[in-house]
Parts: sequence; structure tokens; C-alpha cells
Amino acid sequence: MTASFRFELKATDGAARMGEIFTPRGRVRTPAFMPVGTAGTVKAMRPESVAETGADILLGNTYHLMLRPGAERVARLGGLHGFMNWDRPILTDSGGFQVMSLAGLRKLTEQGVTFKSHIDGTRHELTPERSMEIQRCLGSDIVMCFDECPALPASDRAVAESMRLSMRWAARSKAAFGERPGHALFGIQQGGVTRELRAESAEKLREIGFDGYAVGGLAVGEGQEAMFGVLDYAPAMLPEDAPRYLMGVGKPDDIVGAVKRGIDMMDCVLPSRSGRTGQVFTRMGQLNIKNARHRDDPRPLDEACGCPACRGYSRAYLHHVFRSQEIISSMLLTWHNLHYYQEIMAGMRAAIAAGRFDAWEAAFHATREAADIEPL
Amino acid sequence: MTASFRFELKATDGAARMGEIFTPRGRVRTPAFMPVGTAGTVKAMRPESVAETGADILLGNTYHLMLRPGAERVARLGGLHGFMNWDRPILTDSGGFQVMSLAGLRKLTEQGVTFKSHIDGTRHELTPERSMEIQRCLGSDIVMCFDECPALPASDRAVAESMRLSMRWAARSKAAFGERPGHALFGIQQGGVTRELRAESAEKLREIGFDGYAVGGLAVGEGQEAMFGVLDYAPAMLPEDAPRYLMGVGKPDDIVGAVKRGIDMMDCVLPSRSGRTGQVFTRMGQLNIKNARHRDDPRPLDEACGCPACRGYSRAYLHHVFRSQEIISSMLLTWHNLHYYQEIMAGMRAAIAAGRFDAWEAAFHATREAADIEPL
Repeated sequence: MTASFRFELKATDGAARMGEIFTPRGRVRTPAFMPVGTAGTVKAMRPESVAETGADILLGNTYHLMLRPGAERVARLGGLHGFMNWDRPILTDSGGFQVMSLAGLRKLTEQGVTFKSHIDGTRHELTPERSMEIQRCLGSDIVMCFDECPALPASDRAVAESMRLSMRWAARSKAAFGERPGHALFGIQQGGVTRELRAESAEKLREIGFDGYAVGGLAVGEGQEAMFGVLDYAPAMLPEDAPRYLMGVGKPDDIVGAVKRGIDMMDCVLPSRSGRTGQVFTRMGQLNIKNARHRDDPRPLDEACGCPACRGYSRAYLHHVFRSQEIISSMLLTWHNLHYYQEIMAGMRAAIAAGRFDAWEAAFHATREAADIEPL
Repeated sequence: MTASFRFELKATDGAARMGEIFTPRGRVRTPAFMPVGTAGTVKAMRPESVAETGADILLGNTYHLMLRPGAERVARLGGLHGFMNWDRPILTDSGGFQVMSLAGLRKLTEQGVTFKSHIDGTRHELTPERSMEIQRCLGSDIVMCFDECPALPASDRAVAESMRLSMRWAARSKAAFGERPGHALFGIQQGGVTRELRAESAEKLREIGFDGYAVGGLAVGEGQEAMFGVLDYAPAMLPEDAPRYLMGVGKPDDIVGAVKRGIDMMDCVLPSRSGRTGQVFTRMGQLNIKNARHRDDPRPLDEACGCPACRGYSRAYLHHVFRSQEIISSMLLTWHNLHYYQEIMAGMRAAIAAGRFDAWEAAFHATREAADIEPL
């Protein structure tokens, strides 16, 4: 335990980095994957189970929590950690991205954004200052700057204007955040897929100064090739001695490719959401448990996996409970997916420490290309 | 462990009984409450969690499992225990009751009943012989006779005819069950709320001879007073040295009243189903977590309860996740309800053993009458 937020870079292998983030709530081993606990719960998982998968930190959504149950209510109840029974670190996003993707009747100004709740239609406002206040109410350990994220493709001019607005908001976020020992504020690089804009954004963020830096504005429809193209240069624009966070990524191969390019932290709803829709990620790729080929299959999802779904249940059972719409289907498949994601992270951390990331990555891809076991 | 099925009556207090059922799969402490695992899962619970609540045995539904995934499929996959990852005893019902309450286009003859699946409309038949075969496929430890259960109120003549059909089916069930060391077959007493018919049914069952005896045909709309009226005499008509099982009961006070009258085993969907609809059972009675009074309440459901929901979460959190339709709401409230039910059972077992059932029962009712804690 430590009283202040601190990042320690422990090993590198090519651009890939292995390290640890220290916070008063505990340590985060990087590269880290953060499960998403949108509304105060990683869906279908008890927090003890999330910890068992190997997650050191999870992500909470400012947008959802401000609408329900409300940031001030969470504060009165002692903060998000106690509320949701998770005592390890929590990172909260700023709400900006979800406003753009979920809320109705958005109005964007220099001041911030007003919108209608997707839950009950009530009007709300988010500004850099209000976002900092909400994240303080929630008690999050890593606070994200309030930013604006344009959907891609967009014109260079639109991307540049949006990025510069986000940089002005980043400065206001920093001022509003103030001094909070033990809590970190992360800036968010924008600039789309344009190198000069990414450089301008990184320079601005470095001037302001943050505890960590996110690569924002990716994984919004540009495709893996374009995303990797940006990641080939963008992380190196950010300070080496601070964690680098790629927001909203991704599939297993996205994650591996991002770490290879110097990313330390990621989050995504994919493993948990897929668990509820029957999409399963294994070493051998992806499978759909609903498929009839699993109906009589006594084998586990992955015989080498140590998660409760693989230790205790056949594909036939998981197929049955998915088809029967039983809650345990979401519980077990989510657990498996999150467990597998954390295994990827642990594998990469060990490989980077040992200086054999390339070999690990080659094996990762080879196992996937061999594909799922043959039907019986 | 034991190679054969055996019941040991260890203490009595008035009509209340405390004992143990021994099976090759493990011991069942009685009075026992059996959570219902309808389709191969106690909804919203992992089996490890069901065991943690203190359940020694659970119930599986023949009707649901024969339709999906199918009895022969479960047999090929190694039986219900392995399929659903529950290695303790399982009791299966005969399918008769669910056919009457769920299936379509039922046709009842001396031979059995034909019906249409509520899932896909396919036609199926259940007879005493087929019910025994299905329960053997499932590998259940306690098998129930196939019976017919008329809804109450019904004329004495209809109840008598139905009871006599069930007794002929009981004899056929016994013949079809055959010799299965380590597995038990329970007969089911019928006869509605008519003492003479209950006596006739009990006499017939004793002639056939079973490992245990259920009081059937209650909890079908007759009300608690009428049910207790039957329980004042019906259990005593059954052999003292075999377990007595009251099917489909019930609310906490139904359970206590049944044990007081000599019942050893019960099952009910109420604690698990209520967990999914926000109805919570505590020592202080029943509460609805959806109610706005819980929205800002930092206290647990019951500060004296040791279940994960009460140890880790406020009423405010449980209210929030219920209102947000989060799966963890069903997970935690189901766990709490099942935990509370098992606490009742453990309390009664200890009280009977100590010869102070009346005092325990008085305290049970007094705590409920004091009602839930005041809103803040």
C-alpha cells in the first residue's frame, strides 16, 4: 500500500511495457485489463468473482451512475467502492463518451454538453467541472478528463476542432480536480488518425501535466488496421514514466496488438457483454455456445482453462442453460470470458518481463489459427 | 457415506421431528428445505453457493428436464448431478404436477397423460413407467411416484377418484422402479382435505411400501388454515420411521407450521423466485426492495444475517441494482432468501433436538410481528 499514486515501469520488450501502478487502494499490474462495471456492477458477476479472475481494477461509468442512483447519493452512501463492495482501485470515465453514444437531444457548447437521460428523459449537464465533481463523489481512484470524442470518419478540420476543445476541457478538468493525494487524473489524447493532431494533443497534455495519459478517440469504428496505425506512433508521444491507457479496447487480438505498441491499460465491455449473448472467447478463438454442435458435447469450453465454467461444466450444459435463458449462463460465460482476458494479460506481463513478447505473441496467434476443437 | 438409503429419526418435540437421511451422495439433515433447480440450475445461483446456504439436497423438475435438454441426453452426459455440477443428493418430482400446471392440451387416461410442451408444442406422454425411466436417466437419489393432483376445491367424489388413480399409479411406479440400492422411491398421499380419503390413501401406500412418503395435493390454493388442518392428522397416518415430505411449501410460516405438525422435508420456488422479483424474506417478515424507502438506506437487509447480500451491501445498493435490472440483484436476493430459509431449518433442527420447539416458534412469530426496521 502507498499513500500516493505512483507508476513503476519494470520491464520493456520492444515497445511493450510491464509495470505496476500503486494506489492507496492497492496495486494494478500492467498491462492491465479493466472489466467494466457500468452501473455499480460488472454484470452477472459478484465483485469477489471479478477479483478471482485476476482483475486489479475496474471501470465505472460516470454517465450511468450520475443518472442512477446519482453521484451525490453514492457519496452520501460512502462512495462507489463501498456501494458496490469493491475495495480495489476504480477508474471512472468522464461521461463524455456515453453522452455521445446513449443520451438524447445533446447540445454541445464551449461550456460543456446538455442532454436528456436515456432512462427517464430528464435534462442534465456535463462540463469538465461537473465531471470532476461527480468522479470525486464516486470516490474513484483514477479520474478521467472530460473530453469530446468525434465519431470516425470525420474531416481533419472537425477532428482538429474537437481535439482543441478537448484540450481546453483538459485544462479546466485539471484546475477543477485540484490536489487530491492518492487520486490520479488522466489526460486524454485526441486527434483521430492524424499524426500531427495527435502530436499537438500530446504536447498540450504534457504542458498541463497529468498522472497518466489515455489514447482516446479510437475503437470508434475506424477498424483494427487504422487503430494499430495510430498506436504505432501515438503512445510514444506520451510521457514514458506515466501509464498509457487505450479506452474501450477490445477483442483479444486488439489487446495484444495494443500492448505490443506500448499500451499499459485497457477496458472493454466485450468479455462481459459477450458472456450474456453466448459469445465465448478462448485460446482457440471465439465460439457461439448457442450453436447446435455443442448440444451433446461433454467437453469444457477449454480444457486448459481454470475458470469455474470450464472446471465444472460441459459445453452441453452451457448450451442448455443459454438456450433456456437461465441466469447461470450469463454468470458462467461472463466469468469465463473475464478469466480468459486476465490470462492474456498475465501471459503478456510474464512474457514482457522475460523479454520474449514476440514468441508469446506468435504462440497466441498460432493457437487461434488452429481454431476451436472439432465437433464430436 | 452409506451404500443404502436410510432415515434416522433422532429427536422429537411434540409432533415435530429432527433426523437425518443418509444416501450414497451424502447426508440430509431434517427438517430439510430443498431449493428448486427446475431446469438444471437453481436460478441465479451457482451450485457452490446453494451449498453455502446450507442446503443438503435440491429438487429437479422431471417435466422441464424431459423437454429440455431431454432425459436421455442428460443420461448420456452422465446424469443430472454431473450435468449441473451438484454432487449432493437430488430429489426429482414425477412431472405430474407440472404437466397439470404448465403443459397444453392435456389428456388424462388410466394409462397416463399426454400433453403438448409449453416450450415448442411437441407432444409427449408421461406414465408411471416413463416417469420412473426419466428419473432413472436423471440419476436422482429420491424418486417420486407419478401421481395426479386435482386443483382444490373439488368435489369429494372427484378427489376420491383422482386419489385412487394415483394409488394405482403408485403401485405401477413401485413395480417400474424395481430394485435400485442407494436410491429411494417416495409414495405420495392424496385425498384433498378429506380425512377419510387421506387415511385410505395412506393405507394403500403403506401396503405398497415406500422409502419415504409425501403429503401431496396441498398448497394448491386451499389456504394455510385448511392446509394446517390436514397436517394436523395426515403425517401421523404415514410410517413413523420414514421421512415425510410436504410438496411445494411454502412461506416461512407455512414451513414452521408444517414442521410443527411432523413434516421432515419441503421444497418451494418461493425464496428463489421472490429473489428475482425483489421480494425479500427476513426474520422481520417480508419486504419489497423496489420500495422507495430503501433508496437511501445504508443498512443491510438484516444486520444479523450472515449471507453475502447482508454482509456486503446496503439496502440502497440492492434497491439500485433491482431498479436497474442488474443480474446481481437476482443473484444477491436469491442467495439471501435461500440463506434465510436454511437458517429457519437449522433453527428448528436445533430447537427440536433441545426440546424447545415451542419457545423457538414463539420467538419466530414475535420477531415477525415486530416487523421490518423503521425507515430512516
